[in-house]
Amino acid sequence: MATSNLELVVNPRVLEMEYAVRGPIPQRAAELKRQGREIIPCNIGNPQALGQSPLTYFRQVLALVEEPSKIARERKLKELFEETPGSPLSEDDFLSEYVLEVSERILRLSGTGTGAYTESKGFAFVRQAVAEFINRRDGFTGDLQADPERIFLTDGASDAAKRILNVLIAAPNDGVMIPIPQYPLYSASITMFGGVQVDYYPDEERDWALDRQELERAYRQATRQGVNVKAIVVINPGNPTGAVLDEESVREVIDFAEEHRLAIIADEVYQENVYGEKFVSFARVLGDRPVPLFSLHSISKGFFGECGHRGGYMEVRNPPRIAGSDQSLIDLLLKQASVGLCSNTAGQILTYLMVTPPEEGSEPYALFQREKERILQDLYEKAQMIRAAFDEMEGVKCFGKTGAMYLFPRLDKLPEGTNDFDYCMALLEETGLVTVNGSGFGQKPGTHHLRIAFLPPKEQLQEVLPKWIEFHNRYVRG
Amino acid sequence: MATSNLELVVNPRVLEMEYAVRGPIPQRAAELKRQGREIIPCNIGNPQALGQSPLTYFRQVLALVEEPSKIARERKLKELFEETPGSPLSEDDFLSEYVLEVSERILRLSGTGTGAYTESKGFAFVRQAVAEFINRRDGFTGDLQADPERIFLTDGASDAAKRILNVLIAAPNDGVMIPIPQYPLYSASITMFGGVQVDYYPDEERDWALDRQELERAYRQATRQGVNVKAIVVINPGNPTGAVLDEESVREVIDFAEEHRLAIIADEVYQENVYGEKFVSFARVLGDRPVPLFSLHSISKGFFGECGHRGGYMEVRNPPRIAGSDQSLIDLLLKQASVGLCSNTAGQILTYLMVTPPEEGSEPYALFQREKERILQDLYEKAQMIRAAFDEMEGVKCFGKTGAMYLFPRLDKLPEGTNDFDYCMALLEETGLVTVNGSGFGQKPGTHHLRIAFLPPKEQLQEVLPKWIEFHNRYVRG
Repeated sequence: MATSNLELVVNPRVLEMEYAVRGPIPQRAAELKRQGREIIPCNIGNPQALGQSPLTYFRQVLALVEEPSKIARERKLKELFEETPGSPLSEDDFLSEYVLEVSERILRLSGTGTGAYTESKGFAFVRQAVAEFINRRDGFTGDLQADPERIFLTDGASDAAKRILNVLIAAPNDGVMIPIPQYPLYSASITMFGGVQVDYYPDEERDWALDRQELERAYRQATRQGVNVKAIVVINPGNPTGAVLDEESVREVIDFAEEHRLAIIADEVYQENVYGEKFVSFARVLGDRPVPLFSLHSISKGFFGECGHRGGYMEVRNPPRIAGSDQSLIDLLLKQASVGLCSNTAGQILTYLMVTPPEEGSEPYALFQREKERILQDLYEKAQMIRAAFDEMEGVKCFGKTGAMYLFPRLDKLPEGTNDFDYCMALLEETGLVTVNGSGFGQKPGTHHLRIAFLPPKEQLQEVLPKWIEFHNRYVRG
Repeated sequence: MATSNLELVVNPRVLEMEYAVRGPIPQRAAELKRQGREIIPCNIGNPQALGQSPLTYFRQVLALVEEPSKIARERKLKELFEETPGSPLSEDDFLSEYVLEVSERILRLSGTGTGAYTESKGFAFVRQAVAEFINRRDGFTGDLQADPERIFLTDGASDAAKRILNVLIAAPNDGVMIPIPQYPLYSASITMFGGVQVDYYPDEERDWALDRQELERAYRQATRQGVNVKAIVVINPGNPTGAVLDEESVREVIDFAEEHRLAIIADEVYQENVYGEKFVSFARVLGDRPVPLFSLHSISKGFFGECGHRGGYMEVRNPPRIAGSDQSLIDLLLKQASVGLCSNTAGQILTYLMVTPPEEGSEPYALFQREKERILQDLYEKAQMIRAAFDEMEGVKCFGKTGAMYLFPRLDKLPEGTNDFDYCMALLEETGLVTVNGSGFGQKPGTHHLRIAFLPPKEQLQEVLPKWIEFHNRYVRG
């Protein structure tokens, strides 16, 4: 088909935007795949693309909510089964009464099922459940309790981050502080909305710790250049670093934000991916301090891995007043949400299930727990396997505790004239392993890294890791 | 919970944006509903919120794709049933083999099911099916065939429209022509992306016909004011007017766009809602002429009504070259899509089902056709009921053939000092009927209208229409 002879001047911000997670390396991988090569896509935290199964309970409920007539049929079948001695079916062939009741409850509370637009903020009953989840998680009572009217259901956390940055960035010198390295959604969105990216550097050698001095340095440098810093993004657990912040670090960020009157954007989508470490939420440490906080969560990560369904939420605490307007920030976010009508309903239902796991002792509970523990245990063991491989690679150091779904090793011995992009591309060509070059996330000048998602099945890792070690040691020797 | 003491300067474009479809009137309706009043939400084309059932076939397949283990179980149950004479179940209690096979095919073609991020553009097999649908619909062969690489799956058509406008609007004097009245997504998005809205007026008294002279007038006036007009939006069938364009009108727009080197954004989401009229696609009339065309479609409308699932596609024809860049427009749209990772998978699956209805003669075919015809017939009859009520209202005229899901009557006799917003608000307070004031869509100065979605069940219309007539005639007499 033709191309028009029209030449178009397009939005320069879209043209400038960069997004390495789906950049040239994954594109080359797709090409190799079409040619029949075996490809291991570790460029992105996409567990179900690498063989992780969805949680049985989630899908049982979701399927019934999508096809409600199957609830009555299931009851009829169960009754028949119970009346038929010697049936070749077993109890396990049927859905539990608990699953049927949860599905009925969702349908009843939704009012319209999954086929209608919901409220712009998302189903009220899901937002209520999210509020209760936050209250349980952080022990909130009284005035600190989450307010369902300040919770927005979104098409994943990427959607939420874009909404917030779109509202916050009001002028070309408005700045948003982001950690380096960072998830490129943030840099791309800041470019998109025409603001200034203000980099701060967690300390790699101290396991990517945050440090007040560094935050102050970054802030001072930006303001000296005329940047009006308005917010700070923190990703905890970290992406791409996997680092897990302790309470002290979280408090330091809050102190810093309060002093400089900044909003905090807390990307907490990996809060379940801490592997024995403790997740400390920004909301809990914030308590009653009046710092504006946007907290993001998602069904894509944790042990859910429901990336394709695009579900998640943002909770707003201490919304600032809007200069020169009677509208509250919540009204403004509501109007913004309404132009997209609503986030998708399957994602909303899965968000509900994420925040209301089966009750202890209920029929689906034991299996749910087994699946959860197995997935998280597996992830941790796979991270350890990859770390062990790093030990056999010359000049590879990987700092930070294991968190999120990523390792972000530093490559200290790349041959003169090569960089981490070259390395990752060569690694792909040779082994089929798709990683992302550190420069795609930002890194200290002169350093090289890569990000690998520790998601492939163990057997696949066992096969590819020796090849990687061999490739690496050959590559660094030039 | 507290509000912070921070005062924030927010993005003025978000602050300015207006979106009446979910503005003050629907907000007041939500308040009344909470107080226990019966509310009839005709402010938005949201069929399943007004009792329309989802298509049986769509949900049967979707549920199996979400819960694949149920496919094998279904076969086992069917086998048992067939072996058990005198079973209290009937054939109808089981899913057809066709449904099982389609579900298996979707799972196989997807590779990863619904839980993984898909390609940024959406599942390749769905884009292939969309291309084949367009080819069938428009009789395309050879070079005119749709290219799956130029099709993007989106979270509904709103998402698609925003993506296109975000790319096209490159400078504050970049203009986009939109019909007045229009669906406020367009005005809101143009405000959002910082361009100029250039109004053109279809001729109400000639059933909202488009006319080349009026397009030229609007274009000339804008360029005289320094606006760089880049694209024209056409909504066909019309929203809010319901008007259906004939081939001649479509050709006129294409002639106009070609002469002035504009891109065409064809919002064709109501292409199934023509009630005996003929839908003429922009792609078909365009043929091999090199005018850039973005065509939008959605699962939310037609006889599907799957609004909550947020699915749809955009097809790009004749993508223009990008000034000062090696990237093609398709690459740019791909990068943009990749920052959101992908549209939601349930919406993608339903888009697949929309473009691949059950084959003639297959087991689900008869029921599917019955449901389709009944929904469309019902919509048409409900439109006629409302039109008949207009005849009993003083000074109400409703032009245009019946299309889309809306009627947009003109209110010629509002009392001095009142406007259509006042009228719609009073109508809501008195009858519970939620409509949208014409000013929310734009209208010729000095005229007043409202938009009503002809979706409520007939019994509800029978009850509310006499009340509306009574209210109206009282209201206009002051």
